[in-house]
Amino acid sequence: MRAVDIIIKKRDRQELTREEIEFFVRGITSGEIPDYQVAAWAMAVLLNGMTARETTDLTLAMAHSGEILDLSDVVDFVVDKHSSGGVGDKTSLVVLPVVAACGLPIGKMSGRGLGFSGGTLDKMESIPGFRCDLSIAEFKRQLKEIGVVLAGQSPSLAPADGKLYALRDVTGTVPSLPLIASSIMSKKIAAGAQAILLDIKVGLGAFVPTLDEARRLARLMIEIGQQAGREVVALLSDMNQPLGQAVGNALEVREAIETLHGGGPADFRAHCLHVSAHLLMLGRRAATLEQGRRLAEQAIASGAAFEKLCALVHAQGGDVSCIEQPERLPRARLVEVFPAGREGYLSEVNARLIGESSVLLGAGRSRKDDAIDHAVGLLVHRKVGDFVTVGQPLVTLHANDPARLAEARHHLAAAFRWSETPVPPLPLFYPLEAGEEVTPSPLPAG
Amino acid sequence: MRAVDIIIKKRDRQELTREEIEFFVRGITSGEIPDYQVAAWAMAVLLNGMTARETTDLTLAMAHSGEILDLSDVVDFVVDKHSSGGVGDKTSLVVLPVVAACGLPIGKMSGRGLGFSGGTLDKMESIPGFRCDLSIAEFKRQLKEIGVVLAGQSPSLAPADGKLYALRDVTGTVPSLPLIASSIMSKKIAAGAQAILLDIKVGLGAFVPTLDEARRLARLMIEIGQQAGREVVALLSDMNQPLGQAVGNALEVREAIETLHGGGPADFRAHCLHVSAHLLMLGRRAATLEQGRRLAEQAIASGAAFEKLCALVHAQGGDVSCIEQPERLPRARLVEVFPAGREGYLSEVNARLIGESSVLLGAGRSRKDDAIDHAVGLLVHRKVGDFVTVGQPLVTLHANDPARLAEARHHLAAAFRWSETPVPPLPLFYPLEAGEEVTPSPLPAG
Repeated sequence: MRAVDIIIKKRDRQELTREEIEFFVRGITSGEIPDYQVAAWAMAVLLNGMTARETTDLTLAMAHSGEILDLSDVVDFVVDKHSSGGVGDKTSLVVLPVVAACGLPIGKMSGRGLGFSGGTLDKMESIPGFRCDLSIAEFKRQLKEIGVVLAGQSPSLAPADGKLYALRDVTGTVPSLPLIASSIMSKKIAAGAQAILLDIKVGLGAFVPTLDEARRLARLMIEIGQQAGREVVALLSDMNQPLGQAVGNALEVREAIETLHGGGPADFRAHCLHVSAHLLMLGRRAATLEQGRRLAEQAIASGAAFEKLCALVHAQGGDVSCIEQPERLPRARLVEVFPAGREGYLSEVNARLIGESSVLLGAGRSRKDDAIDHAVGLLVHRKVGDFVTVGQPLVTLHANDPARLAEARHHLAAAFRWSETPVPPLPLFYPLEAGEEVTPSPLPAG
Repeated sequence: MRAVDIIIKKRDRQELTREEIEFFVRGITSGEIPDYQVAAWAMAVLLNGMTARETTDLTLAMAHSGEILDLSDVVDFVVDKHSSGGVGDKTSLVVLPVVAACGLPIGKMSGRGLGFSGGTLDKMESIPGFRCDLSIAEFKRQLKEIGVVLAGQSPSLAPADGKLYALRDVTGTVPSLPLIASSIMSKKIAAGAQAILLDIKVGLGAFVPTLDEARRLARLMIEIGQQAGREVVALLSDMNQPLGQAVGNALEVREAIETLHGGGPADFRAHCLHVSAHLLMLGRRAATLEQGRRLAEQAIASGAAFEKLCALVHAQGGDVSCIEQPERLPRARLVEVFPAGREGYLSEVNARLIGESSVLLGAGRSRKDDAIDHAVGLLVHRKVGDFVTVGQPLVTLHANDPARLAEARHHLAAAFRWSETPVPPLPLFYPLEAGEEVTPSPLPAG
């Protein structure tokens, strides 16, 4: 078997066999297939696609390119969650403590932010001392002892995915549904997940911009799950506007803490309760969504969920006093209000432009090795559908550098659009099947 | 400007600007754009195509990636020819001496054979002592002194093409019309050509299998020539069956010598006269094709063309006695006839399978660094349309190794197909415009 023949076959729109895909993934892992052949193959996959069968074989080959985590001695049933990434998406910071407090152990490996989208690890690292680089032994020990872990992706899991992902980033081959789906699913399978909740973000601030594409991605991952013997539930959630108010690392940690105390923005709270309810059902801790939701609400109301966050931070070396007194988290020196320049109904609060503004402030990375300023970011006070008058605050910017502040303020101006006539609010979630998405369907407030 | 953005633009089927193409070609030449980005871009070009304008810009950028040969102090008008490669295509060995004998100086840089297709340099190197690696100064001096040169591609001309070509070979990105056209034309423009004759091979033994694709390639190269201010004439010639009888290096040199002595297979002789006539017209030595053809016939009949071949071989260090007494060229030890297994009209004499059989004998390369056995090859005695009876010789195999002989004999069996009813002969050339190709139109025998 030769790598070039496998490239040619995909170039010519033929279906690759399992043996060919396994050969190619082995070659990526060992380095025997050089980067230029992997790059040409990835472009052919992006442009010519893959069947669900090929994508499943790619997923399993990448999952088995390294160690497969066995958590059976620690947890009775391994549940994991994945968000496809968005702006203001601090969901894991709330959902993990909530479900752990409900008796469902959950250990999650997360990534860092890149581009306009934030990463869970960066958010957690705004807590002084918090470490994400746990060994697999540490990961398992903590999961057994306190039932909740939030760590970085272990390089020993799915190493082929790690190599392919790095190459895709520099060869224009990121937005391919089979490559996205297999990358996500291979990491989850390697991490030992038996059931997986996928939170697929759709809209201006998501990597998947259209509902149609998000649905295709969801169906593909559900099918991979079926073929690989894993339970998969996919939610499609709105990412046209930021989730919650806070965008930026310490600001988002603060918002997560407020939410665990029973407060927080209504949309973010509703989002977290819905995700938690699904996880509790998947993990056999609730029989219905309604029951899962009630358990989650109780875990927040009783303080048990907040206690779990404290235990998580403590276990991973973080300064718990910053969680108990969030004003001790990093704070920016310059705080400035961005007011509405006109009156009317907000018809767009562009998550992507807001995410990019937070990167301009220093909250995210343009390149992989950029340093992050955990203190900076934005609070976005208004949602699509809100009526605003001239001068009302739309955003509060938190900055440490006047030049960056000016740049972000300038970039932010294009994020808002107005309408003279009322605009319906955006839904939190979209149905997985087409037909109902025209009417917004927000969840009832928590 | 970033390489990844240019890849993404082509991936998304957008037209690249001249500046973007020049940036990319500069990056290939300097090595600043890594191979994996070039490979992803090449696959995107192959699958999404390029406009004629983009292809012209790519051609000129690659032509100017190194030195541009200036032959104005040596030749009044620089004519060059290019064949897209085939099986038994020893045309340059006859045509160059013929037109040089007619007073049209011609210096050509050629390539080596790869895969089932032979290369002119390999053929010439079956003459003991013949050297192809001339410096540019040697090339110009010889062109001035004897009016004919046959050398290898100088690495100082179009280096970007050299790098891109090597990468295409291992990434499945060879069969792309814009990449093929720009590769050929950039080398010709860098070699200083003012007028270019393209001999585009079509059929089973060509890199362009269909007439439709060959026509698109021809039109694309004519358009590049127009936009770049070069005269371009394109011929489409049949490569379903081998050209002439000989396939394999020394065997082909012998057939070229026979042809220069006024003999040789009728189809090959007619092909060479047609190509020579076009070159003489392009080079302002003949006013009409008919006149060019007469001049070429006279150069053969007078012995002047053969004398030019001797001068060429002598100038490049070859043993001229092997040209004067061709039985002194390398000869294979094992000579075996491959007879017809049945009676009927030949409906296929598959050039590709015959070319592959010659590679199995050792006449060509499967990989770039394979050694070549100049003595081995095949003589194919019959053409499509011929009536053959059981036992008549179809092919004579020339081998040096019994195992390779057996392999080639086995491979050859599939090359012939029969018909009970008469089959028309294949044309030598196809018209450039569609409409006439249904009826075979062989040239009158020379």
